[in-house]
Amino acid sequence: MNALAETAELRNDLDLPAKDARHVLHPWADLQALGSDRPVVMNSAKGVRVKDSEGTTYLDAIGGMWCMTVGYGCEELADAIGDQARQMAYYTSFGDVSNEPAAQLAEKLAELSPGDLNRVHFTTGGSTAVESAVRIAHYYFAAQGKPEKRHVLSRVNAYHGGTYLTQSLSGKAADKTHFHYETEFIHHLSSPGHDPDRDPLSAEARLTELLDEMEAEIQRLGPENVACFVAEPILASGGVLTPPKGYQKATLELCRKHGILYVSDEVVTGFGRLGHFFASEARFGIVPDMIITAKGITSGYQPLGAVLVSDRIAETISKAAPSEKPVFSNGFTYSGHPVACAAALTNIKIMTRDDICGHVRDVGPYFMARLRELLDSPIVYTVRGDHLMACVECWTGEEAGPNDKNMALAARVDAYCQEAGLLVRPYENLCILSPPLVISRDDIDEIVGIMGSALTRAAADLEAGRL
Amino acid sequence: MNALAETAELRNDLDLPAKDARHVLHPWADLQALGSDRPVVMNSAKGVRVKDSEGTTYLDAIGGMWCMTVGYGCEELADAIGDQARQMAYYTSFGDVSNEPAAQLAEKLAELSPGDLNRVHFTTGGSTAVESAVRIAHYYFAAQGKPEKRHVLSRVNAYHGGTYLTQSLSGKAADKTHFHYETEFIHHLSSPGHDPDRDPLSAEARLTELLDEMEAEIQRLGPENVACFVAEPILASGGVLTPPKGYQKATLELCRKHGILYVSDEVVTGFGRLGHFFASEARFGIVPDMIITAKGITSGYQPLGAVLVSDRIAETISKAAPSEKPVFSNGFTYSGHPVACAAALTNIKIMTRDDICGHVRDVGPYFMARLRELLDSPIVYTVRGDHLMACVECWTGEEAGPNDKNMALAARVDAYCQEAGLLVRPYENLCILSPPLVISRDDIDEIVGIMGSALTRAAADLEAGRL
Repeated sequence: MNALAETAELRNDLDLPAKDARHVLHPWADLQALGSDRPVVMNSAKGVRVKDSEGTTYLDAIGGMWCMTVGYGCEELADAIGDQARQMAYYTSFGDVSNEPAAQLAEKLAELSPGDLNRVHFTTGGSTAVESAVRIAHYYFAAQGKPEKRHVLSRVNAYHGGTYLTQSLSGKAADKTHFHYETEFIHHLSSPGHDPDRDPLSAEARLTELLDEMEAEIQRLGPENVACFVAEPILASGGVLTPPKGYQKATLELCRKHGILYVSDEVVTGFGRLGHFFASEARFGIVPDMIITAKGITSGYQPLGAVLVSDRIAETISKAAPSEKPVFSNGFTYSGHPVACAAALTNIKIMTRDDICGHVRDVGPYFMARLRELLDSPIVYTVRGDHLMACVECWTGEEAGPNDKNMALAARVDAYCQEAGLLVRPYENLCILSPPLVISRDDIDEIVGIMGSALTRAAADLEAGRL
Repeated sequence: MNALAETAELRNDLDLPAKDARHVLHPWADLQALGSDRPVVMNSAKGVRVKDSEGTTYLDAIGGMWCMTVGYGCEELADAIGDQARQMAYYTSFGDVSNEPAAQLAEKLAELSPGDLNRVHFTTGGSTAVESAVRIAHYYFAAQGKPEKRHVLSRVNAYHGGTYLTQSLSGKAADKTHFHYETEFIHHLSSPGHDPDRDPLSAEARLTELLDEMEAEIQRLGPENVACFVAEPILASGGVLTPPKGYQKATLELCRKHGILYVSDEVVTGFGRLGHFFASEARFGIVPDMIITAKGITSGYQPLGAVLVSDRIAETISKAAPSEKPVFSNGFTYSGHPVACAAALTNIKIMTRDDICGHVRDVGPYFMARLRELLDSPIVYTVRGDHLMACVECWTGEEAGPNDKNMALAARVDAYCQEAGLLVRPYENLCILSPPLVISRDDIDEIVGIMGSALTRAAADLEAGRL
């Protein structure tokens, strides 16, 4: 009897969805439905499809959660994980102790990342990697005698994680609830998205506006008080918002001018989703001071995150560390976890060998072009995105944006997609799509076909007053 | 060629320690040595022993990092991990979606935990679980119209994690460096350790002193402003500090009197280290409002943490959540990771079947009794601990505590242990021990034997002025 079958023995009389409803407090749960909901419990997956505990199969256009690169059920990756668990499942990486997969992976990441980002600080995911980047920026300036240079710039609609600090950095209004947020040293600039189809301003005018605002905010705080700017190249879960052309480079130059560190959050845009291992330089022409990575680094098969740190920063903090206490007191028990690092190494090997980035550069434009056919629907306000990150924004034809009517409409589209075996990610009035990177043209046609039908049905509901 | 052998192909001309020194920024690294150190790179392990890249084998008296329960190289656990990675390596657990191992594990944790702690919020490790507990406490009061009830009590020498919030909660002076810390709503009470051999005060007098201080601090802040008290039952990495008898219960009563939530951080004390799955009730007679778990939950084989939340809290936040936005905006991409949850389920199955908690209750007192023989050494100030968490505190015979001389002495003991094939965890002037829970009496004899010799050598060095 294999381990999974034995695990199943632990079941009692409650079925899986009922157990889950009774005992799990989910991230982003609907609290009012706690205990009375009936979750969809996934229990197997292969390629681009997942199957739930009741036997229904779905085409997973969410890609797990922006993280699936090589597809589900990859034997080679599962073997690497099992083999490393057998060989050495854990050892601490605190201080001057390491493990083979962590050392190998650090070297590989240095090779894949741009410029002098050759120093890797491993964490347990994106949130803890952003945490670490901000803390490194704090250390960097404080060790040089500038503890007041600790303010952090972020943007409205940014998403940087689920901890106290990273939720405070995030700028999604929908996520600001009864939790407590840090507001003393974290500041939000405007959402930088620019939609050429819908924005009344030209890209150039929008860029000027954004840069003027950023300069003004830096002046308001005083450049001597600002430690870093944290930015996704394209804002992912905030609504797949692409800044106007030239924004990433111009904001980097603004940061350099004022001695502010630039942290590029590539948790979503990295590992192939835009057709490159890292998008910062390859797509946006920038070599930031730190890059955040997670999700696609292991194809989601293992929890892992990392901050890639420039040699400049590493050398500075090494020199500036006080000799009486030179300890870098940041990190986690699971930093550099051998099994997670082994998964990342094998994932990178597969992605390189199978040229998955090349595949994304090939099918990405097809995906976007086919999705844009959905603009014909009267309830689609806009379709935006880049390669394999995209969203379809719904509206009733009255006022655009995340109002009650538009959100109800998008929820209806989402429900019809799910009914037809397609998972898209609902957020406010958006259907977000980030399929596994190995997606084929046929799969893309299936996604667009199901979405088209769902939009037609939802539009008919709207027309008939059934919303 | 298996996956590990292929991974090895990625090697270039640098050897592993050199690669690591060039590319990894370790947790708790010596920053001044960055790039010039030569790390010990572990690459295989079996039972209670680990082997480095140069072929040296060590008895691992650190237990990974407080986390090894069933021992290294456990085939059954490695198989469960590999099998789940093959079946479904990832799916999101956001909102109303779950996966089979997460649902099964949540039910199992509810069964193992005390009282009404039946609701599980999964995270990526201990740090993110403590983060989540504090945030839940914030939500709990703010949703009930009391956002000002957000202050948090911790203690000097506490350790609660590596994020901004949890490092701020931690109270280890050695870890306070050039990073930035939250000091507005986090407050530290005195270190509560009581050493019957060395403390000038009786346990009763010490307890009274600690409770008076806590009551005074609550009054100073105003009970209406204090959200929660976060406490390890025994302070682990702060130096294996056991509070006086009755402390956990009395502090819980104080919290209840003032409507303050009690968060028991069992990242170290849970999963068998004190002979029970959870120590809060079994050892200290308390049913806290939340329990934090991590490390031993997977025997370290996978990154995983969780907050166990009482039904009282879950019901209150469910009722108090605003209907216009009832979302619980806290959690992580990797929350409820199927592979990590499958590892925990199999780990619990093995621990239960092999009665590993019973084994710890059996060998734990033997371990402590044998360690206490080391008190005969002139350079041992005290030996303290409980079952399989312990420490040996060194001194030169002059002034006790973490001064330069005592720290140099402990470092020498540590170096001699490592030379003789034993890993203990050096911290200030302490040698900390937390061996894998499957440790045998013979292994314990070996640990004590090597430590005894190391102490003798270090004492001779001290005597001869060679320190």
